[in-house]
Amino acid sequence: NVGIRRAEIKQGVREVVVCKDGSGKVGISFFAESKGVFVCYVKTGSPGAMAGLRFGDQILQIQGEVVAGFSSDKASKAVKKASAARISLAIRDRPFERTITMQKDSANHVGFSYNNGEIKAIVKDSSAARNGLLIDHYLCEVNGQNVIGIKDKDIAKIFDESPRTITITIMPKFIYEHLMKNMGKSLRKSMDHSIPDV
Amino acid sequence: NVGIRRAEIKQGVREVVVCKDGSGKVGISFFAESKGVFVCYVKTGSPGAMAGLRFGDQILQIQGEVVAGFSSDKASKAVKKASAARISLAIRDRPFERTITMQKDSANHVGFSYNNGEIKAIVKDSSAARNGLLIDHYLCEVNGQNVIGIKDKDIAKIFDESPRTITITIMPKFIYEHLMKNMGKSLRKSMDHSIPDV
Repeated sequence: NVGIRRAEIKQGVREVVVCKDGSGKVGISFFAESKGVFVCYVKTGSPGAMAGLRFGDQILQIQGEVVAGFSSDKASKAVKKASAARISLAIRDRPFERTITMQKDSANHVGFSYNNGEIKAIVKDSSAARNGLLIDHYLCEVNGQNVIGIKDKDIAKIFDESPRTITITIMPKFIYEHLMKNMGKSLRKSMDHSIPDV
Repeated sequence: NVGIRRAEIKQGVREVVVCKDGSGKVGISFFAESKGVFVCYVKTGSPGAMAGLRFGDQILQIQGEVVAGFSSDKASKAVKKASAARISLAIRDRPFERTITMQKDSANHVGFSYNNGEIKAIVKDSSAARNGLLIDHYLCEVNGQNVIGIKDKDIAKIFDESPRTITITIMPKFIYEHLMKNMGKSLRKSMDHSIPDV
């Protein structure tokens, strides 16, 4: 199933190489939390988006320098001072997120409701209930596609148009609200919402 | 590596079959959170421990009944009323936990400190830092062995005696403290601390 593969949160550490665009930008923003540095913004069409970076990814190294304990400003400066052509990042895939795969019923539903991306209720005996979906979580991806900053009614369209098997990626509310707290409406809209290459 | 395999958090839903012991007990306790039911206690030597249930596992079904939205009491009653010989549970492996694999340095350290199981500091440029270990998390397992309820100095022995590659299983503080809030000292001590079969 291509949705499951697009949503996969791989174990371990991987290297991602990004460059800067014509105006010297990579198009990602950081958030520091619990001595870790996390990606909280990936601009649509930016080098960061092209390289497959996602909301929630943890940055472990920038140009070989370990960033544990860095502030978001210090991490941004480390990216800024790197050469435009080749910035090497060590990444751990979205450690605060997990995926849940569900099946649509005959009415085309998986069985949960959400409000501004927050999961609010689980329908009794639905596929969501059988698979253990929880409230107090936010929807981050549908079949691997970032839906943060997409309106609920447009997320509903993505669900409607999905194949019968749907994989969602969720993040607990307590950490989601930390990561998003500096992200205004227009930034959310300009986040990368492309369907990942697999 | 056997530690990595013992610690593995598998995706998807699996069936576990448990029975009751001579006094009619399975030896597990539940905690309800965000419309899910979680295992917060597995008694050493109990049928639940033998069946491989672990702290943090999510219970999805008991005897085919979906338990989403159940209170912990209601889930316990569903287990109590089941036949002694065969209780079927649908389980999702420890959804709030994740694993991090590190390598000991020449001083036999991976590079973090903890207090009552809570991760408090990360040593600069250590294996813990390079692998993105975070504070505000609790140690749940070392090489797949549950260490909740084990004293810090005894956890240190488990680290000392581990092979060079160590896999730890951690849970964010906010959810750990929920799950553990009704667990007194003597209950913690009587938790299953056996090394998992692989």
